[in-house]
Amino acid sequence: MPTSPPAGALYRAPVELARSYLLLNHGPVTLVSSAHRGRRNVMAASWAMALDFNPAKVAVVIDRRTLTRELVDASGEFVLNVPTRALAGLTFTVGNSSGRDGDKFARHGIATAPADRVAAPLIAGCAAWLECRVIPEPRNQQGYDLFLAEVVAAHADPRLFSDNRWHFPDDASRTIHYQAGGSFFATGEAVSVP
Amino acid sequence: MPTSPPAGALYRAPVELARSYLLLNHGPVTLVSSAHRGRRNVMAASWAMALDFNPAKVAVVIDRRTLTRELVDASGEFVLNVPTRALAGLTFTVGNSSGRDGDKFARHGIATAPADRVAAPLIAGCAAWLECRVIPEPRNQQGYDLFLAEVVAAHADPRLFSDNRWHFPDDASRTIHYQAGGSFFATGEAVSVP
Repeated sequence: MPTSPPAGALYRAPVELARSYLLLNHGPVTLVSSAHRGRRNVMAASWAMALDFNPAKVAVVIDRRTLTRELVDASGEFVLNVPTRALAGLTFTVGNSSGRDGDKFARHGIATAPADRVAAPLIAGCAAWLECRVIPEPRNQQGYDLFLAEVVAAHADPRLFSDNRWHFPDDASRTIHYQAGGSFFATGEAVSVP
Repeated sequence: MPTSPPAGALYRAPVELARSYLLLNHGPVTLVSSAHRGRRNVMAASWAMALDFNPAKVAVVIDRRTLTRELVDASGEFVLNVPTRALAGLTFTVGNSSGRDGDKFARHGIATAPADRVAAPLIAGCAAWLECRVIPEPRNQQGYDLFLAEVVAAHADPRLFSDNRWHFPDDASRTIHYQAGGSFFATGEAVSVP
């Protein structure tokens, strides 16, 4: 398991925007963090994917009943954080509680660091972070809870992602994929072809 | 590795439409099969995700330069096939060649079976299949190469998916996640919380 960075710090290195799709290509679960005027939240989202290379874009489903939706609608910004296996419990917890019942960061002791380009925080202990600005597409947002966004900054833990490839030194640092009901899969063995 | 089914047959059992999102939730790479008036094709797509539970919907990016796009635009239908590790080589191959250079099924000896509700074929040896009908959203299609579709039938290999959960009996039957350049990850160890 990675050593924890000092409080308020993250192990992060910049990822070229045109390569940021590589952080999501393998389909990990994400944590969507958001903030607006002193309020903040974090929720889990499996329904997130890359949408374009350059300019880098993503698509993510944000349910209209969530506090995250309210904050993203108001701010036009969010961060897709890519949690490690060490954060599987937290990922499940924030995916099954509402920020309307109290600040999840305080309640669950979630450490954060400021993002570079958006107000939403970066969640400590994650493997990667994509800072995103919503591309207004009201028909998608209202009809399908679907948000398209441009990636305006991207970072990854250089111990886990470098030279545009993931490489997991231990099991706790693997990214995770959500199944259902508290059941995840770790990102598994590397398979190279041909 | 699963025993091959008889030619033209598949190991498949129906998956309830409202549960079909579980086939994509963990972010596997997909094979998009399509057909129209005697032409057919298959390409790889990592940028595919569930979009809604009920009616079940998916979102997938289909590049405007591909033959798949031409066939999907013409037919309004496709199948998202979820390949196993045993098909990693094929997944890479069909993701790096064009159906305009000749029928990929014939060239690569890809076995198929008819789908129930769409003309696009089901690819043998896959772990799951989602038969999809495009929800016409021209702005997404033309602006972002993004297709939204309703899932009209879903099936999975019952040896790998049953009781609404994935369970992989051996390494060759695991689903796979695409990284880049011929590099995949197998779906890894199950992680349950809390």
